[in-house]
Amino acid sequence: MILDGRKISKKITEEVKSKVESLDKKPGLALIYIGKDESSKVYSKMIVKKAKSVGFNIETVIEETMDQESILDKIESFNKSDLIHGIIVQFPLPKDIDEEKVRNAIDYRKDVDSAGVINTGNLYLGNDAFIPCTPKAMTRILEEYNLDNEGSKVVIVGRSNVVGKPLYECLNRKNMTVTICHSRTKNLREHTLDADIVCTAVGKRNIISSDDVSRNCVVIDAGINVEADGMYGDVDYVSLENHVSWITPVPGGVGPVTTAILLENTLEAYYKNEA
Amino acid sequence: MILDGRKISKKITEEVKSKVESLDKKPGLALIYIGKDESSKVYSKMIVKKAKSVGFNIETVIEETMDQESILDKIESFNKSDLIHGIIVQFPLPKDIDEEKVRNAIDYRKDVDSAGVINTGNLYLGNDAFIPCTPKAMTRILEEYNLDNEGSKVVIVGRSNVVGKPLYECLNRKNMTVTICHSRTKNLREHTLDADIVCTAVGKRNIISSDDVSRNCVVIDAGINVEADGMYGDVDYVSLENHVSWITPVPGGVGPVTTAILLENTLEAYYKNEA
Repeated sequence: MILDGRKISKKITEEVKSKVESLDKKPGLALIYIGKDESSKVYSKMIVKKAKSVGFNIETVIEETMDQESILDKIESFNKSDLIHGIIVQFPLPKDIDEEKVRNAIDYRKDVDSAGVINTGNLYLGNDAFIPCTPKAMTRILEEYNLDNEGSKVVIVGRSNVVGKPLYECLNRKNMTVTICHSRTKNLREHTLDADIVCTAVGKRNIISSDDVSRNCVVIDAGINVEADGMYGDVDYVSLENHVSWITPVPGGVGPVTTAILLENTLEAYYKNEA
Repeated sequence: MILDGRKISKKITEEVKSKVESLDKKPGLALIYIGKDESSKVYSKMIVKKAKSVGFNIETVIEETMDQESILDKIESFNKSDLIHGIIVQFPLPKDIDEEKVRNAIDYRKDVDSAGVINTGNLYLGNDAFIPCTPKAMTRILEEYNLDNEGSKVVIVGRSNVVGKPLYECLNRKNMTVTICHSRTKNLREHTLDADIVCTAVGKRNIISSDDVSRNCVVIDAGINVEADGMYGDVDYVSLENHVSWITPVPGGVGPVTTAILLENTLEAYYKNEA
């Protein structure tokens, strides 16, 4: 059965919208995208549209190129602005930019995608912190379908700083037992076959097919692979859709929930810093 | 066969000592222990003795009670001191003290046990950071016996901020495939039986016996359980010592290596901040 990300996204978005309507001041989100990738530009514009639709103030910096100093200046002005509560920078940035510097330039109180060291540290220490949007979205999907059971055996494939590792922390907080697999894992199938839940975030197609997972398995696919003929996740969806018990499609799974979580996190930043 | 922590500790300590001898200025370590626990006091004095033996300057605050402001003042004076390069606070502190505040009061450049949010964040982001002494010691034991093989299946039992979680990051950097188990894990044995390496850091006796692990297994036990008749680890050592391929004893395993790593991390802080 399909885990309908669009439905969950709509629910979250409507909740955010109704909360925003009761506020005197608008929550504000700043978005920075520097680059020439068409699909990233499309994604940025989609965030802008969604943020406006819930009544957010939105400011954008969308450019094909920009030098590091100018990016840092933009962030500094958003840090200082009373109208902005959340700042998201789309990574990767062009190669000549020091990403680490950019991440940590964002005021941690406005770092709604948890890109910087303060939120990352607090996340792993179990303290209050913004949770990165993609792993928070994956966790939310499990929650919405009552699949977030304590003691579940989870295999995460992919160990990136933005998805795999923080997803461990999210699912650990649910008392699940998590194994993190990656490109150097020997015999990945041995791990996935035994899992109640398999989460993927690799950026490579067809890494999991029906031979790799049990029929009871829940598959949450955060992969985005843009090809000439469409957008694909990390797993072999065609082989899995009638095999596993639950699966997220791509598109229409983790992606739309992630965008909605960005709005939710920005509203959280608003409450924390306007209160 | 026994993984001899005392031997590794001696090796690291001698390396630190010989490096210190070539320095014009002494590395300095500040140690704070507030409490009435006799074994913690003994441990603190042991660190002092070891630090002196390698030629460190050492300053201590060892008191049965102290209010929060005074602890923070002490840390602030160590932060400012040119003679101190590393600061370690023994946790837990008395219940009326805000531990989070104390952790984050330590200048991150002197936070040699990686207690604060900056080192924690940088650790999980894969950046340069001090690695907490206990998980670094456990990793070092595997290295010293050439047991740190890429692709090894590891089960960590215990998910504390000071051992289990950062140990994941240490072993992930070795490209191992790590599962983190805990008190809510269902059927722990199913996981441990399949593991090449089992690491424990729980603070509870006899959680693993010969029924739980294969004969090829390597067992690294960071547990310290002080009982009337002696000190014990988390695993059933008697049942395991002739069953598994390698095991750390308690005492004489992870403990002494941890103390040596504290000296090593302090020397690292010295190099970073005096250079």
